[in-house]
Formats: sequence, C-alpha cells, structure tokens
Amino acid sequence: MNTIGLIAFALVGSAKAIREQFDLFGVAVVGLATAFVGGTTRDLLVNRVPLTLSSLSEVSLGMLGVVLAVGLNVVLDSPDDHPVTMLADAVGLGAFATTGAIVATEAGTSSFGVIAIATINAAGGGAFADLLLDRYPFILVTDFYASCAVLGGVTYRIVTSALATDGAAAALCATVTVGTRLTAVNRGWELPTAQAFGELLLGPDDN
Amino acid sequence: MNTIGLIAFALVGSAKAIREQFDLFGVAVVGLATAFVGGTTRDLLVNRVPLTLSSLSEVSLGMLGVVLAVGLNVVLDSPDDHPVTMLADAVGLGAFATTGAIVATEAGTSSFGVIAIATINAAGGGAFADLLLDRYPFILVTDFYASCAVLGGVTYRIVTSALATDGAAAALCATVTVGTRLTAVNRGWELPTAQAFGELLLGPDDN
Amino acid sequence: MNTIGLIAFALVGSAKAIREQFDLFGVAVVGLATAFVGGTTRDLLVNRVPLTLSSLSEVSLGMLGVVLAVGLNVVLDSPDDHPVTMLADAVGLGAFATTGAIVATEAGTSSFGVIAIATINAAGGGAFADLLLDRYPFILVTDFYASCAVLGGVTYRIVTSALATDGAAAALCATVTVGTRLTAVNRGWELPTAQAFGELLLGPDDN
Repeated sequence: MNTIGLIAFALVGSAKAIREQFDLFGVAVVGLATAFVGGTTRDLLVNRVPLTLSSLSEVSLGMLGVVLAVGLNVVLDSPDDHPVTMLADAVGLGAFATTGAIVATEAGTSSFGVIAIATINAAGGGAFADLLLDRYPFILVTDFYASCAVLGGVTYRIVTSALATDGAAAALCATVTVGTRLTAVNRGWELPTAQAFGELLLGPDDN
Repeated sequence: MNTIGLIAFALVGSAKAIREQFDLFGVAVVGLATAFVGGTTRDLLVNRVPLTLSSLSEVSLGMLGVVLAVGLNVVLDSPDDHPVTMLADAVGLGAFATTGAIVATEAGTSSFGVIAIATINAAGGGAFADLLLDRYPFILVTDFYASCAVLGGVTYRIVTSALATDGAAAALCATVTVGTRLTAVNRGWELPTAQAFGELLLGPDDN
Repeated sequence: MNTIGLIAFALVGSAKAIREQFDLFGVAVVGLATAFVGGTTRDLLVNRVPLTLSSLSEVSLGMLGVVLAVGLNVVLDSPDDHPVTMLADAVGLGAFATTGAIVATEAGTSSFGVIAIATINAAGGGAFADLLLDRYPFILVTDFYASCAVLGGVTYRIVTSALATDGAAAALCATVTVGTRLTAVNRGWELPTAQAFGELLLGPDDN
C-alpha cells in the first residue's frame, strides 16, 4: 500500500506542476514534495531524522511517479484525474494515515497528536505542493480528502484505546480512510463552509 | 495569559479562513495553525517534541477559538476586528513572546536566537496562516505587530543579562509587547518601507 | 565563501522584498530568511539545533546584507541584478551546497539525502523567500539555479564514494556548483518544461 501511495502521490503532484508549466526540476521537486513532505514533517514532529533521507528505495518510488507523470502527460490530458490514479491516491491516503497514527502512538503523543500526525502524514505533502504552486491548499477549501485521514486517525485511536491489537487498529484505520475517500469521490461529498453551516442552523441569510 | 492568547489566535485565524470561504475543515486547520504553529516551530528549533502534540488542554483552547469564530460569524460581521478580540490578541502576543524568550534562553541560544524565537513564537502562527490563505504574511508588509514581539524579546534579553530575576524579565517582556501593541493599534503605527525610508534620508525622489 | 554567500543571499532577498513594498521589518525578515532558512532546514532535517540560533557572527553578516540592500536601493535600481551581486550569489550557492553535502554525509544519510540536503541548503532559503512574497519559488519554474546545487551534490557524493579525501570532494562540489551557475547565467540556460520535453521526444503537438 505504501508503495502504491508513494508512486500515486508523486504522480499527482508532478502532474499539477506540469500543468503550471514548471520546468523539469520543478516538476520533480513538486512530485517528490507531494510524496515525502508529509512523512518528513511527521518525523520532524516526533524528533527523528526523516526516513526519506536514509532510504533509497522510497525515493526511487517517488522518482518513478515523477517519470510516469512526465511520460503519461504526452499521451493523456490529465493523468492525475484518471480513475486508476484516483484509486491509487486513495490507497496512499490510507497507507500514510495509518503510518502516521502508528508513529505518533509509538512517540507517546496525545489523542490529538495521533489524529494530527495521521492527517499531516497523509495530506501534508499535497498541501505543501499547493503552496509551492502558489495557491490555496485545496484540502482546506473544498473536497473531502484530509477529512478521511482525520476519520482514519480517530478510528486508530479508538481501537487502540479499546485494547484491541495494534494490527487491527491499523487495518481499520486504513479501511476507514480508503473507504470514506472512495465514497467521497463517488458521491461528490464536500464539507460546508462556515457560511453554509450558519444558514443550515439559522435558515438563509436575507441580507 | 496563555489561555487568552490561544483562544484569541485561533479565533482570529479561523475568522480569516471563514472570510475566504474555506470549508469547516480548512477553518479549523487555519485556526489551529494560527494558535499552534508558532509554538511548534519554537519547539522544533530547540529540538524537542512539540508540546501541542502531548497536551490536550492547549488544543482544547484552540478548538474553542475555532468554534467561537464559527458561532460569532453568524451574528457579527468580523469577529476578528472586535475590540475585545484585538485586546485578547495583544495579550496572546505578549504571552507567546515571553514563552518563546524563556524557552530560547533555557536552550542556550544567542541573543539573536532569543529575539528570533520570541518573535516566531508570537507571530509565526499568523504568518503561516496567511501563507495557507495564499497571500503575503501581513506582518511583513504593514502594521506594527511582530515588531512588538521583537521589542519584547530585546527587553527580555537585556533584563536577564543585567542579572535581574527571570520573573522580572518575563513580566517586563510581556508588558513591553502588550503595551507597544495596544499603542500601535490606537495610534495606527506603521513601519516605513525602504522607499519611504530612503526619502526620509535623502528627500523625495523626483523621478 | 560562506561569508560572501550570507551577505549576497540576504541582499538578494531583501531587494526582492523592497520591490514588493514590504516594510522594513518585512525586508529584514525576507533577507534573513533567504540567507538562513536553507541552513536551518538542513539542521532540522539532521536533527540538531540550528547553528543560526547560537552564532551571532553569521546573523551579523545577514544583517549587513539587509542594510546593504536598503542602502543601495537609494542609488541603484536593482542591486540584486548587479553583476557583482550575481557573482557573490553564485559563490554563496557553491558554499552552501558544499556545507549541505558535508553535513548530510556526516549525518549518515543516503546518496539522495546528500544531494537533497545540498540543494535545500543552497536554494531552500530563496525558495522560502518567494513563498513569503506570495509567488512561485522561481527555482521551480525557470532559470538554472538549484540544478547547479544538485550537480554539486552529485559531484560530492561521487568523489567521496571514490575514496578521495573529503577536502577534494568539497573543493570539486563548490567548483562544479559555481562553474555551472556562472555558465548558466552567461549562456541563459533553462531547463525544459515537461511539455517542451514531450515535443522534443515526439515532435511538435499539432492539437
């Protein structure tokens, strides 16, 4: 799952940079950032040297995603919107949320820490890539994406507290994250804005 | 003071995200980032696991600020411009600058380190939130905001060097930061740009 | 070389902030960020307290660059485009890439880690400054800048692997970085975009 996620994340990030006419160095940086900034931030937060800097196999998977994006760009219009990419990206979201929850739990953080690090590990790379592309992190404005990782992190925390085995918690975390993500894509789920939420509570604003 | 600051910072950050039509997840992230990114960066710089990830009570205060912003948005136009919010924000600026100066001094940084970490702790969260909102960090362009934390940090450093007790240094740091901030708001203080500064030295540019 | 680099980087960063009408605090922050964020990120990644926070002499050099930018702005139109600045900036790029490669090697990272940290140390500060200025990091979109640090990092890694002395590796890394940068400026080198790269492989797109 981690393998699929690294390739998919790098592919999605690179495809966004290609669309913005970044040069090949920029395409590679945005792709690798999408794949690795989440995990690197996780490692910095729990105070250890990022794995990315010592493991060559992970980086190779990221580079493969970059190369795929550049190659597919010649034959497809938007390789990052392809159903296979969407599926692989959802699998990556689940894998990274689970890894984040495990690392945070091992580091002894609070419940909030587990959920926050699961979310950052899963969605932080994409958000950072959007900053490099000089636009809003899309996960903050629309879509139901990082919220799936939040739900996965909550699941992990509840299951580990309920004294189930860590393996069960990890499997459930991944299942919840991938499941809610795929459902969100199919159904077009979105979270309301605060304005829409206010209208929901009080009825439409007549100003 | 720290309590007031966390609530005020989260409220101000969330209100900015609400105005930009972020969804509720985005509103919560920007609010929590405003409250906690400064302290988290401080902890990373002095190489310790961020307190935010282990203390649930701090996060609860941040979440309270987010909820307040969403709730007040229904009844007020700009809850972040309300005089009570401005006052609470100034108190937070003072509290966070002081905490930053104390942590940096304990970590054995140079005078520059003390001032830099006091400023980052106090103003870094707001600056990061502006990056998430895809605009200039406002503290770099206008207003007299981070400069109050710089003055507070300088005060702390001078007082501790002069061998006064740490308690006195902390009290003076907070007083200077809050005092200059409130005066700056009342008097509309702004720092000059380099262009205006050049004209100040040389007279107006006739080009 | 490090001395020249710190002054040049701070000058270039400050000059960009001056052009965007940032106030003097903002000019200082962007200038110091350009000079120090690369090295600070390097230190965070290898899990040590950033040198910037404990060494006053380095910060003084950065402040000198800021003051130079503000002063020269009165008499020159673009002090950051001046040939002397371009040369000093290239020297800084070489010095910082070399320092990054040395620190990463000492920290025991993989080949990728050495190259990545050399590049981040050399070009990360400028990229972060561009984010503060609310625009694309220019190194990702155009120019042949960070790529020189990549080549320097590759050189360092190859030479140290080939069992030459570390001193030789450092000298070669700096030479390659500065040499390719100066050539790139003179010849107007740019990397292709993925689109141009596709056309290069397949011939022009007739759509």
